Amino acid sequence: MKREIYMDYAATTFVKPEVLKEMMPYFTGYFGNPSSVYYISRKTKMAIDKARKCISKVINANKDEIFFTSGGSEADNWAIKGIAMANEKRGKHIITTEIEHHAVINTCNYLEQHGFKITYLPVDKFGMVNLQELDEAITEDTVLVSVMFANNEIGTIEPIKEIGELCKKKGVLFHTDAVQAVGNVPIDVQNMNIDLLSMAAHKFYGPKGMGALYVKRGVKIDSLIHGGSQERGRRAGTENIAGIVGMGKALEIAAQNMNKESKRLIYLRDKLIDGLLNIPDTSLNGHEINRLPGNVNVTFDFADGEIIVMALDDIGICVSTGSACSAGAIEPSHVLTAIGLSENGAKSSIRLTLGAKTTEDDVDYVVKTLGDIVLKLRENNKKWNERMH
Amino acid sequence: MKREIYMDYAATTFVKPEVLKEMMPYFTGYFGNPSSVYYISRKTKMAIDKARKCISKVINANKDEIFFTSGGSEADNWAIKGIAMANEKRGKHIITTEIEHHAVINTCNYLEQHGFKITYLPVDKFGMVNLQELDEAITEDTVLVSVMFANNEIGTIEPIKEIGELCKKKGVLFHTDAVQAVGNVPIDVQNMNIDLLSMAAHKFYGPKGMGALYVKRGVKIDSLIHGGSQERGRRAGTENIAGIVGMGKALEIAAQNMNKESKRLIYLRDKLIDGLLNIPDTSLNGHEINRLPGNVNVTFDFADGEIIVMALDDIGICVSTGSACSAGAIEPSHVLTAIGLSENGAKSSIRLTLGAKTTEDDVDYVVKTLGDIVLKLRENNKKWNERMH
Repeated sequence: MKREIYMDYAATTFVKPEVLKEMMPYFTGYFGNPSSVYYISRKTKMAIDKARKCISKVINANKDEIFFTSGGSEADNWAIKGIAMANEKRGKHIITTEIEHHAVINTCNYLEQHGFKITYLPVDKFGMVNLQELDEAITEDTVLVSVMFANNEIGTIEPIKEIGELCKKKGVLFHTDAVQAVGNVPIDVQNMNIDLLSMAAHKFYGPKGMGALYVKRGVKIDSLIHGGSQERGRRAGTENIAGIVGMGKALEIAAQNMNKESKRLIYLRDKLIDGLLNIPDTSLNGHEINRLPGNVNVTFDFADGEIIVMALDDIGICVSTGSACSAGAIEPSHVLTAIGLSENGAKSSIRLTLGAKTTEDDVDYVVKTLGDIVLKLRENNKKWNERMH
Repeated sequence: MKREIYMDYAATTFVKPEVLKEMMPYFTGYFGNPSSVYYISRKTKMAIDKARKCISKVINANKDEIFFTSGGSEADNWAIKGIAMANEKRGKHIITTEIEHHAVINTCNYLEQHGFKITYLPVDKFGMVNLQELDEAITEDTVLVSVMFANNEIGTIEPIKEIGELCKKKGVLFHTDAVQAVGNVPIDVQNMNIDLLSMAAHKFYGPKGMGALYVKRGVKIDSLIHGGSQERGRRAGTENIAGIVGMGKALEIAAQNMNKESKRLIYLRDKLIDGLLNIPDTSLNGHEINRLPGNVNVTFDFADGEIIVMALDDIGICVSTGSACSAGAIEPSHVLTAIGLSENGAKSSIRLTLGAKTTEDDVDYVVKTLGDIVLKLRENNKKWNERMH
């Protein structure tokens, strides 16, 4: 029988059975529209309230600062366009980085086409934003800085607290796409001076199609989705009750386990990195220490990442090249090129992300298997052979 | 034991057990990100494809004209803002009606604040749009007409085919918010010349947080949610697979049953209307014939709608005043005032909407109960007493 190993937790996670169990009553049983006044709706209103409270606690926000969305992409779009539009009379300059998720980059590109000025900050070879460069980029016209909490491809965790401090000092709003971080690393929006933060439930064992935007009290933001008065008039649309309940439960579990689980994942991650780096001509992408607990991203010189992923798939191992969202695209990862990899280097890279079901045995098996695959690919690679003989 | 009768199907529906059953494998089992290449993702990609095909068939669209969204509100926002932004160099005038859902009206209001011109067409006392008035409102600057398929409060079905023909003749795009219509009445986007159509799964026994926008091939529209290349690059965000599967299944069932079920509902609806109109000083809102199968909206003079709803809630009957989305708001329904009701009249109105579980027995019981409640309320109403004595 084929052994199945999923190592693409950064692309998406399964819904944990205890999360699904919590969601179940809200599909067919307690299905009332929370905007209605009768008894079956009061139940759903209370369930939403409970989830909101739970989520706000995990990031040290207030309950009324959490707004549910359909996921991380909506939250990113809302944060950036909402702030841009609400503050366009104050200034039309936004600062972000070269390694953001497409939900941020493409939103900024769109605003650029509509009269806004965007600065895309470079990063160093580990994927870290330089604070001095950020400082220098801020002008009188700057209304928003958007820097991701942790990178989805290479796992690098940015100096969020320092960025938050700088933005506060300069009087500029600070948004962070924390889709990869929430549930995996501790976040404190107050201590870190974060004004807006995006999250997505399906990255921490909650349902897909569900996310939230934290908006600090007093921050002026336009709606992205206008209509009914849901979410205190800021995000219209009948609430996805089951999704909201699932997101709350999933984050509650993640927060409870975070300490223990992140230690376990860091141990497995480092073992996987060490094992893979034993394969000749292999290098690690991203920061060695400031790194998401479950993220591994490596470049195998003289081997094609796409082919590695397919070879692994054949034997039941799921990993990815670059980020899942840009799969199908032919260009090399914008993140890997931003940290200095050549096009060839980027195309020889794969991402392995660990999670709840990953075992030490899986790690050993993947190291061994990948070693064999890479070796075999290189044997068929002309350049490799020329170099070896 | 309290008898429970739900008569608010227009606010939201429960998820049918056979729909939920279809969704279940995609939470914990087949959870792979459809953007990935490995086997567990191919399963989800196929499931999405199947749902898209099914939905497109029901409205006679092509598969690649269906774009999944987080619901009807997102679809409405996307349709209107997306067309407005993509065509702003052609013209900045949009025509809609006074009785649209807030997801349309508030989106138009927002565009109005940003340099667009909006015409809000009045309707007649039945809630019908006048074709000649629409014709006269179209100018060289008009890029979009947005008229709802059927009204959520009073159930009136608009002359969609005629509007579509007119728009086609005039070279103006036509969007219809069909959230209340899809799954309840036959829709043919080709025959009706519809360019964009919004729908929401939770109105036809699918999950909440799930909808779609039909966009006719060749129509130029900006994205509302930028980012990854999902939905052929038009709507970013990891797909809500379970939601999509549920929506497909729910619409498949609705389409199969539509003929039989709409006849059944029309019979019950008319029985309910007849019964309620036997209560003195009661009048029907909306069109008598061009009306959604499950919609009843009546005004009880000298009785407060809000109090009726609460009294019904006390004995286990769920109905609403105006639309659920504006509950909590103090203003009288904009739909009821648009068809000529006074503020008092609007506030004396309730909506009862029938659906899958409604029985003839329920209808009889509600008629009897409502009669008693209204009578009692009027006995305590000074104005009523003055008139009677």
